[in-house]
Amino acid sequence: MHHATDNQPSAPRTSAPRPSALLAMGPGIAERLFTDHHRSRLADLARTDPHLVAHDLTAPHVAAALADAEVLFTCWGATPLTAQVLDAAPKLRAVIHAAGSVKHHITDACWDRGIAVTSAAAANALPVAEYTLAAILFAGKRVLHSADRYRALRTAHDWRAELHAAGNYRRTVGIIGASRIGCRVIELLRPFDLRVLLYDPYVTPQEAGALGAEPAGLDDLCAQSSVVSVHAPQLPATHHMISAGRLAAMPTGATLINTARGSLVDESALLSELASGRLNAVLDVTDPELPPPDSPLYDLPNVLLTPHIAGSLGDELHRMADRSLDELERYTAGLPFADPVHPAALGHSA
Amino acid sequence: MHHATDNQPSAPRTSAPRPSALLAMGPGIAERLFTDHHRSRLADLARTDPHLVAHDLTAPHVAAALADAEVLFTCWGATPLTAQVLDAAPKLRAVIHAAGSVKHHITDACWDRGIAVTSAAAANALPVAEYTLAAILFAGKRVLHSADRYRALRTAHDWRAELHAAGNYRRTVGIIGASRIGCRVIELLRPFDLRVLLYDPYVTPQEAGALGAEPAGLDDLCAQSSVVSVHAPQLPATHHMISAGRLAAMPTGATLINTARGSLVDESALLSELASGRLNAVLDVTDPELPPPDSPLYDLPNVLLTPHIAGSLGDELHRMADRSLDELERYTAGLPFADPVHPAALGHSA
Repeated sequence: MHHATDNQPSAPRTSAPRPSALLAMGPGIAERLFTDHHRSRLADLARTDPHLVAHDLTAPHVAAALADAEVLFTCWGATPLTAQVLDAAPKLRAVIHAAGSVKHHITDACWDRGIAVTSAAAANALPVAEYTLAAILFAGKRVLHSADRYRALRTAHDWRAELHAAGNYRRTVGIIGASRIGCRVIELLRPFDLRVLLYDPYVTPQEAGALGAEPAGLDDLCAQSSVVSVHAPQLPATHHMISAGRLAAMPTGATLINTARGSLVDESALLSELASGRLNAVLDVTDPELPPPDSPLYDLPNVLLTPHIAGSLGDELHRMADRSLDELERYTAGLPFADPVHPAALGHSA
Repeated sequence: MHHATDNQPSAPRTSAPRPSALLAMGPGIAERLFTDHHRSRLADLARTDPHLVAHDLTAPHVAAALADAEVLFTCWGATPLTAQVLDAAPKLRAVIHAAGSVKHHITDACWDRGIAVTSAAAANALPVAEYTLAAILFAGKRVLHSADRYRALRTAHDWRAELHAAGNYRRTVGIIGASRIGCRVIELLRPFDLRVLLYDPYVTPQEAGALGAEPAGLDDLCAQSSVVSVHAPQLPATHHMISAGRLAAMPTGATLINTARGSLVDESALLSELASGRLNAVLDVTDPELPPPDSPLYDLPNVLLTPHIAGSLGDELHRMADRSLDELERYTAGLPFADPVHPAALGHSA
């Protein structure tokens, strides 16, 4: 039973009518999210206006499409789905978010109306975990330090003596947070000769063991780890969880990796430890997100500072598009989402 | 049947007599190779003078120990085992090399005398593969580029636009050489959404497939790969195998990783590609090994140059000690080496 307009070669594989879908995301996102292949697959699965991307769901020119939409296909920069927006979308049954956290645009009003929500958080976790893995391995080998020193010295030098405390053999890595990203980092660390500690208040020792990590208290984890990597959500309870005391407890020469949120770390305490050269850091996020131009974070040789790029970038957006179209395909086939977002889980996740 | 002097708590676990072993390696190596645990294990397994490390096997003060030695336990900087040295070691039956390549010190005279040889090349391959994996992941995300640019700009910026060609999703990585290191890199790349090409003239397409890679000719590999990583041995046939033409065939924005030997790459051709900014490089080795002080390799922003540290460093030496003591334990138990070095294989390996 096909809709009247889809009698064409790219007809859907299911016999159900194609739902009406509206793209809602910030300017410039759809162009990077979709290849021609994705556009074609989207057209196969749903009735959409290929030329319409709603940057603002309250704009008059999208009102008709919103009123007709059964599915919102969202990404970064989507308009928050307030009760007012939802009132203008009486047919809306599902939101498919082709990015990580839905906290910016999914409201209680969505849950109140029984709208099903899925996100590509699992897909977006992968590049963050990959960045983290590379940062852990480079930290252990002191790769960036040795490159800086080589540039400075340019002479024969006993590098094995200078780097005698380096290496990735039986070193301890502390993972904070068994989030999707934290769990993926632990999984990616399995092939290496590293001891992995995990702190997560919602994970039992048995669960930690099943993941391949040893459970640890947060203080112990910081005191024992050569590398500490933060994968906890931004919540009131996690504000400055990496406190001055915990930074002071980290071993001299240790590295803090933060790809989560800047507010999880007491940044002024961290700056003191970095300025003294006692600790190293790999920071993809800071507090505030853009450090002031005179921040030492830009210039300290023992800091690798990147502009919040650990998440999906470039072709990694296509992975989120692939997974989100998989969810749309499940929806059109009458199946539940493979990766549903549950309102109860949002209280202690990103 | 224990030797008369070893009636002590640290007696060996086997009933065979402990062989006489002599440590032979460069100055300062044994101190980094062995922990107290290793020293104790060595004393359990063999009769050795714990205070004697032969930095030069032709020195008069080591003559008695060499004359008595059944096993040489070698590492970097060991004296080449010429016929003359071997004439002074009539009881020598085995060489256990606690490092990678044995080409520096194992001679035809060793094979002629039927001396068994093992090396920790498998252990030494792991840190090189780990460095390479991290370099591949960081190259795909343009991590070091984005850190440099962030430091330069210090303002809000559309990083997703600038880095639209980045990412590690369905990108092609070319591995040159199914050496221990090359094979380990391919194995470590399995969890990622990357396509892996392999060039190795000694590997069949079936073997490449079993490793998890697609076989490719060297020209094709260079032309198709976003990252090319060299893991071939230094041989006459591999001199400048990464030629000007193959570098020119690499896609704009691609990264060359070399952790093998500098002579495999036409470095002046590479320098042109790097100076223009068309290619990027991660180089742990160069030709010559220490670039002249005015070499652009030290200063180019698109080059990560490290001082030949990808191999075992710091605690990674302990892994080589562990594996070598495992081999000594096999030897004392009358078992063949788990990882023997065969003379025939040295013609086409490192």
